[in-house]
Amino acid sequence: MAQTIAYLGPVGTYTEEAALLYAPDNLLTPYPTISGIGLAVSSGETDQGVVPIENSLEGSVTYTLDLLITQSGLSICNEIVIPIEHYLMSLPGTIAKDIEVIYSHPQALAQCRIYLDAKYPSAQRTASLSTVAAVTDMKNSNVPAAAIAPHRASFLHNVEVIGIDIQDNPNNLTRFVVLDKTDHAYTGNDKTSICFSFDNDSPGSLYSTLGEFAERGINLNRVESRPTKESLGQYIFLIDCDGHREDTAVRNAIEGISSKVSMLKILGSYPKWETSK
Amino acid sequence: MAQTIAYLGPVGTYTEEAALLYAPDNLLTPYPTISGIGLAVSSGETDQGVVPIENSLEGSVTYTLDLLITQSGLSICNEIVIPIEHYLMSLPGTIAKDIEVIYSHPQALAQCRIYLDAKYPSAQRTASLSTVAAVTDMKNSNVPAAAIAPHRASFLHNVEVIGIDIQDNPNNLTRFVVLDKTDHAYTGNDKTSICFSFDNDSPGSLYSTLGEFAERGINLNRVESRPTKESLGQYIFLIDCDGHREDTAVRNAIEGISSKVSMLKILGSYPKWETSK
Repeated sequence: MAQTIAYLGPVGTYTEEAALLYAPDNLLTPYPTISGIGLAVSSGETDQGVVPIENSLEGSVTYTLDLLITQSGLSICNEIVIPIEHYLMSLPGTIAKDIEVIYSHPQALAQCRIYLDAKYPSAQRTASLSTVAAVTDMKNSNVPAAAIAPHRASFLHNVEVIGIDIQDNPNNLTRFVVLDKTDHAYTGNDKTSICFSFDNDSPGSLYSTLGEFAERGINLNRVESRPTKESLGQYIFLIDCDGHREDTAVRNAIEGISSKVSMLKILGSYPKWETSK
Repeated sequence: MAQTIAYLGPVGTYTEEAALLYAPDNLLTPYPTISGIGLAVSSGETDQGVVPIENSLEGSVTYTLDLLITQSGLSICNEIVIPIEHYLMSLPGTIAKDIEVIYSHPQALAQCRIYLDAKYPSAQRTASLSTVAAVTDMKNSNVPAAAIAPHRASFLHNVEVIGIDIQDNPNNLTRFVVLDKTDHAYTGNDKTSICFSFDNDSPGSLYSTLGEFAERGINLNRVESRPTKESLGQYIFLIDCDGHREDTAVRNAIEGISSKVSMLKILGSYPKWETSK
């Protein structure tokens, strides 16, 4: 059955690339905000939604973490990991040495600094709202310009690629999560995401909680914290562990921590992304 | 002895407010970037530097965490906590109901959403590069406009305050750290910040590390993680604990974890900020 899938747009973003890899035959619709995708999934306006959650250079996408913490009726049902490969593009016929301005999202400009310093030392770097908006900004420029954007943006906008895979650090990966009303059935190669917080921080509360996993030999993939927004120094912890919430060890660990925390939410169990995909 | 203190500028930011509270009689100089302040402190161009590290609503300032992790010759020697109070301001004589545009940094606009929806439902909200730049954008506007900015910006720019303390969530605090070449001497009411990472994540590595603190009854104020930038799923953990690194318990805990981690850096011991200040 064809499903409707919302993704963080506009068309041409890395999130669209991830959504296409995950569900090439489904109806994909760009949404302008992460919180809008959360509402669309929980209200049934779309079947699923794809949002970025973590980049290997920049860290967590805090909007997505806060959405998972606060929005009810939302589970993680899958994850997708793709390499982030920045491309440099310009209008056909632009001569490289004439380029005066280079547009992109500030993060992308920062990630290509060494390349730009070497190849375009005198070009002015100018911030755009997104890597896709950078292509529009470049097309509207009064002077010869280039844009750093995802490869897909080059053929959507009919512009010429003049630099391939130009990011300075090759270890640039982004992990996306697929949101649904329910999580994924057991597959045997799964991860589980949970979040929890404490009423007051006694010396050992986080330690004792992590112990429920360690004692059972459950590997933690990730430990992240977010403010509760109630007071400085009060945090909500987010943990990804190996295994499905229906595995005996994971189920017992979650049961064990439920008595130690003031808030506990299972964000979902879902198959681990295999990088060979 | 008068000291030179760099802060994240421009003039009028919340960081300048924090720096003025910390060192009212010293020579304060605005710097454009957090990394520039790190370099200026470690090279001796300035004695100390003040940068934001954490906000109670937004979470960590990741640029500051990454600076502390990567830059050598830099310690935390103090912390400062101030409430973030947003003010609405306009050119003298502007009539509230005529205001068509409201400028601010996107975070400040988001933090005042309920207030703006109630009082200025039809005004367009427009992003500025900072809350201070918003005042300039407002002054340059062709139509009646307002800006959300720190109180101090109103008298620096000679504009009129038309709304006081307008943020929706009253629990809006920012913690700043003071950077120096060395950390602070023992005072008896201190905190210590460290960071560490593991070569490979065995199920219990973080758990066992936190155990060194828990076993000694040392309270952890904060646990945060940042990507190593080498591979997705590899993290550097940052921990703030009670006590000075010269306290026996803290010294033993740090000694205990040093054999369990592949990288360990003591970011500094410094007096706890007393909110009554």
